[in-house]
Amino acid sequence: MLPGHEQQMVMPGAGLGRRYVRRRLPSQSETSAFLPRGDQVFEATEGSLQPQSQIGRGYERVRRVLLGRRLTTAEQVHERLTKVKALAVLSSDAISSVAYATEASLAILIGAGTAALTQNLPITACIVALMIIVGVSYRQTIHAYPNGGGSYIVARDNLGVLPGLIAAAALLIDYVLTVSVSVSSGVDAMVSALPALNNFSVELGVVFIAVIMVVNLRGIRESGTIFAAPTYLFIGAFAIMILTGIFHAIFSPGGPFGAIAPHQSPAALGWAPQHMGPLLLLTAFASGCVAMTGTEAISNAVPVFKPPESKNAARTLVAMVTILAIFYLGTTYLAWRFGIVPHPNQNPTLDSQIAALLFVGPFAWVYYVVQFATLLILVLAANTSFADFPRLSSILARDGFLPHQFAFRGDRLAFSTGIIILAALSSILLIVFHGSTEALINLYALGVFTAFTLSQSGMVVHWYRLRARAGVNWRRSLGINLVGAVATAIVAAIITITKFDRGAWIVVLLVPLLVLLFRGISKHYSFVQRHTKALTPLHAQDLRHVLVVPIAELNRPACQALAYARSLIQPVVAVHTAMDKADETAFRNEWDQWAAEQQATLERAVEAARMAAETPEGRAEYARMRALVQERPQMVVLQSPYRALVPPLVRYIEMLRDVNPQRTVSVLLPEFVPAHWWESLLHNQTALRLKLALYSDAGVVVFNIPYHLPQ
Amino acid sequence: MLPGHEQQMVMPGAGLGRRYVRRRLPSQSETSAFLPRGDQVFEATEGSLQPQSQIGRGYERVRRVLLGRRLTTAEQVHERLTKVKALAVLSSDAISSVAYATEASLAILIGAGTAALTQNLPITACIVALMIIVGVSYRQTIHAYPNGGGSYIVARDNLGVLPGLIAAAALLIDYVLTVSVSVSSGVDAMVSALPALNNFSVELGVVFIAVIMVVNLRGIRESGTIFAAPTYLFIGAFAIMILTGIFHAIFSPGGPFGAIAPHQSPAALGWAPQHMGPLLLLTAFASGCVAMTGTEAISNAVPVFKPPESKNAARTLVAMVTILAIFYLGTTYLAWRFGIVPHPNQNPTLDSQIAALLFVGPFAWVYYVVQFATLLILVLAANTSFADFPRLSSILARDGFLPHQFAFRGDRLAFSTGIIILAALSSILLIVFHGSTEALINLYALGVFTAFTLSQSGMVVHWYRLRARAGVNWRRSLGINLVGAVATAIVAAIITITKFDRGAWIVVLLVPLLVLLFRGISKHYSFVQRHTKALTPLHAQDLRHVLVVPIAELNRPACQALAYARSLIQPVVAVHTAMDKADETAFRNEWDQWAAEQQATLERAVEAARMAAETPEGRAEYARMRALVQERPQMVVLQSPYRALVPPLVRYIEMLRDVNPQRTVSVLLPEFVPAHWWESLLHNQTALRLKLALYSDAGVVVFNIPYHLPQ
Repeated sequence: MLPGHEQQMVMPGAGLGRRYVRRRLPSQSETSAFLPRGDQVFEATEGSLQPQSQIGRGYERVRRVLLGRRLTTAEQVHERLTKVKALAVLSSDAISSVAYATEASLAILIGAGTAALTQNLPITACIVALMIIVGVSYRQTIHAYPNGGGSYIVARDNLGVLPGLIAAAALLIDYVLTVSVSVSSGVDAMVSALPALNNFSVELGVVFIAVIMVVNLRGIRESGTIFAAPTYLFIGAFAIMILTGIFHAIFSPGGPFGAIAPHQSPAALGWAPQHMGPLLLLTAFASGCVAMTGTEAISNAVPVFKPPESKNAARTLVAMVTILAIFYLGTTYLAWRFGIVPHPNQNPTLDSQIAALLFVGPFAWVYYVVQFATLLILVLAANTSFADFPRLSSILARDGFLPHQFAFRGDRLAFSTGIIILAALSSILLIVFHGSTEALINLYALGVFTAFTLSQSGMVVHWYRLRARAGVNWRRSLGINLVGAVATAIVAAIITITKFDRGAWIVVLLVPLLVLLFRGISKHYSFVQRHTKALTPLHAQDLRHVLVVPIAELNRPACQALAYARSLIQPVVAVHTAMDKADETAFRNEWDQWAAEQQATLERAVEAARMAAETPEGRAEYARMRALVQERPQMVVLQSPYRALVPPLVRYIEMLRDVNPQRTVSVLLPEFVPAHWWESLLHNQTALRLKLALYSDAGVVVFNIPYHLPQ
Repeated sequence: MLPGHEQQMVMPGAGLGRRYVRRRLPSQSETSAFLPRGDQVFEATEGSLQPQSQIGRGYERVRRVLLGRRLTTAEQVHERLTKVKALAVLSSDAISSVAYATEASLAILIGAGTAALTQNLPITACIVALMIIVGVSYRQTIHAYPNGGGSYIVARDNLGVLPGLIAAAALLIDYVLTVSVSVSSGVDAMVSALPALNNFSVELGVVFIAVIMVVNLRGIRESGTIFAAPTYLFIGAFAIMILTGIFHAIFSPGGPFGAIAPHQSPAALGWAPQHMGPLLLLTAFASGCVAMTGTEAISNAVPVFKPPESKNAARTLVAMVTILAIFYLGTTYLAWRFGIVPHPNQNPTLDSQIAALLFVGPFAWVYYVVQFATLLILVLAANTSFADFPRLSSILARDGFLPHQFAFRGDRLAFSTGIIILAALSSILLIVFHGSTEALINLYALGVFTAFTLSQSGMVVHWYRLRARAGVNWRRSLGINLVGAVATAIVAAIITITKFDRGAWIVVLLVPLLVLLFRGISKHYSFVQRHTKALTPLHAQDLRHVLVVPIAELNRPACQALAYARSLIQPVVAVHTAMDKADETAFRNEWDQWAAEQQATLERAVEAARMAAETPEGRAEYARMRALVQERPQMVVLQSPYRALVPPLVRYIEMLRDVNPQRTVSVLLPEFVPAHWWESLLHNQTALRLKLALYSDAGVVVFNIPYHLPQ
């Protein structure tokens, strides 16, 4: 019993109106579950979320340890990021791709022999050129969409819903792939340094994903700060590695410390021989394009920058593309210069080979720093997807293209549904592909370039629309985005063609399927909005009732249900299914006895009410009593010679509904609430079957009158 | 729409009473689902059982092919059996045991070498003596319990509930074992004749059980006739085999056609050597006692005999015991005489070896007849359990020791639950024991002898109680049953000791567990009967309501639910959980608009009702309208800064209940009824969670207001 309960007064009959609720409502002194916040407004405190059951409390304890205390919506932090922090937060995905991009194209080229590896230099140059084009192109998006210009929004606004959905589908797929590729690549870096873990790479990957999931469900509030350390550690370590490498390349023509690795034959390493030709070059180019994943992150997140937002974002974008281009070029150059050959299954990785070659003797610890920093930034890159995927799916859900759950913020303000779905999908992918970065990378990048193309095309339309606006150099802007759109479209085509039979077909198949799903969901939601048939009237005065109480025997739950039905002062029909004559007779006797007892008690109550009918409340009560007396429940027996319980009842209820189109039929089901799970084996079968049978019955309201079994 | 529907009239407001229901009820012209059978009594025809859904109709079609048309309770056939038919129906279990009993004891003895096999002759003699004792003892039960004296009933009536339950538990276990042993033994007989099936014995057994289950679910109405053929075929074939064997034993001292099988060494056959001693002899004796399973069948079924029931039953019992004794002795003698050695895994069976030895050349077909008849009678024996197990479990269910479902007769009048459970348990047993008759037989017989002992002890008490009754020779009767009780008790002890580590421990463990289960169930049912707390009052006049309508947005389902709640003219509280300030404001605006529209419509309706208030119905309607106007729904906003939807609502509802102990809180949940399964992924999550959370909440009634999604 709540404190303050004894102050409560009994309120008379009907017509309590506003007073009724206010008087009865929890004030702060009564409970800590709610705080009064004005007239009929109560704020649910954290106390209202405390589970009551044993299991619930156990779950709550685990939840608290994993996720921390709940956060109110007001606690949402709109942290503005400096350029330095923003670079850390938003570029980990892009910059981390140097950990696998060079290797990805070399792994294609090596099929044609070690001589072919030289071809990677022009390929890398092309990709860097592309990076610059896309970077410049996105700078414009940043300025045009200061509230965040994700590909979905830009494409939807300028090209229409379908292109928007295609971009969204492509991006969602890529976010999943980002997690899988980054985690598997991070595990590769770890396994390169600690070969003993070689056999556990899939398990390690799934554990990493689980940890990232929990961290994201907690929500990362101090994101800028905690992101900065690993990102700058990686940038520093990688910069040192590349500088050291260039130093050795210049001053030790025979390799650092004269220790150039002897060329191993590709066949000896296990690579399948390939024919060297334009297709192979294009394939290598397509593989290298994974370096560009994550480039769009900054343009999505313009509002998180400190003002002037667009300007700061644009500058950060330039910094990011510069770092990415230098690291990517540097890695490619060093690998070529020192004749490093990629190993199958990234074991060890190319970067690990370079670092191991450069940092020997007293500098061996630097190798471990590089590997550790690589692991960290790859995990951070996966983490970026854990921000992007839920955000995009929440926007889609708000637009009605995904189930509404994706738009709910969880206890810690994170979009929990999206986070959990992303973790599940990327884990499945990791398991299906046995944690192989090489295999996963073939699916990758296609989605990114599809989104790039649609986003840049959208920008082209955007500028064209603004052509009349003063102060806009629309021709120049349109030209830049057009170059970007054409370049990324060509790359998307190349990726599709060269990677199709290596796995890209999965993405080519999935994007339209996802778009169909989005449209189906949207169609369904809007259909429900428009075409709904009201099965019961929308105005109280139009509602007429029939209440049906199925009764097996006149036990206590049945009497309760009958009393409940009767108290509503509506026509009540008690239906008994009789298995045989003896059953029918017995029930009739029970019924007559019950009805007589009820009538007698009721008559006494009417008499008492008549005596007390002096105040207005008393008169209302007396009127109610008289109405009760008039509305006597009707008893109907259904003989069931086939011993069926549920079907005749359902048929009878349907018929009652059909012959009373002006009435709403409600079924009152007494239901045992078991105190222990096994008790449900001994009770409720009939109620459950009846409920299931009535579930899809149009226009029948089902009441569950709970009847608790003693503990 | 039903025919005749257009004849229905709109009925005014409340107070429709008896006329209301009668007028609206289906007459025969409206539908074939019900036939009128007097005042407010309707008979559900088979038409009322026709499923409406596609899946339901498909299931119904399968059901019909497998089980046949439904039977009414009135169609129950109380076929009285002649002695000839009764012998066929009731003795298949007992007589069929000759198919494995001799072999069971020989399989023990052979461990001590072929010389030990001779010991089987005195063992068999002992068992036959025991048969006669038990037979004579049961003759008395037949006369004392002309309504059927199953061990459970005799023990319960004379010794008390606990011994009754022990007997019941022992019998239920033995019925399951009878099915497993008979079927596995029948499969042995089949495999002996058709060795190609050797690898499929478990699968064959499960198929046989499934077929027997379906046949029993159909119900066997012409049981006497269809049982007679296989039983008498077996009796005939076995009699011919034994006579032929004796003929050869007398006239061909060197074996039939001089073809005595050369003794094979037990070790060569794969038997493990055993020490010959009293324990081995007792074990062999215990194994042979399986010959006596099924002896109690006739005493259970006295009422099915033609009058004079007891006399006919007693004579049939004598005939059965005689046939059983002769066959058992004969088989043992022939096996010994022709030096036949049991093979491991009953492959081939002993009987098959005897028959193969006797029927050669032009008589080889007789061998197949014997094998086929053995298979048939063993399947019939299993079938006996399919009558006994459901009957005993239905009696236990009626006494409240098993869930009530066991007492319901299915569509074809059979106790479907018991039949399905028996089939499931015996199939599991068959699979767990890899279909090995030898292994299963070790668990067998202990239950039977426990039940024998308790039943005979019960009879001893029975006679002692009747000692004062004139015309009863109580000393003689008591003596006979006492001998029976002591003998069977000794055998039960022998079986327990010798078979304990071969599997009988399972039975020793299971019996008390089952008894505990029975008592637990019974305790629960009677506890529920006695200690139930009524959560809502048992008299309509004592019920006061508060109706709570949780509303996320004022969409159509929500408006319907509000209208429904309001139409009951009780205090209504609409609760909205607001996620933030904007949400709250938006909802308030929606609400105000809705409330204004409702009020305007209602006022027009009141005005119209006032004009029409000339007849009594009109005045009642006017009164209702005025009450509606007075009872305006109250709107409460719960601010949820933690974005939780369900817990604050549940807490609020609980609080409303706690501060209004005189009122019953009902929650009206608008629920989408999806037209397709996947739609439930897009809707209802909140309603479902709320329902689950409220499920175990004492004193809260939940209404489901269905809201159908369009197809």
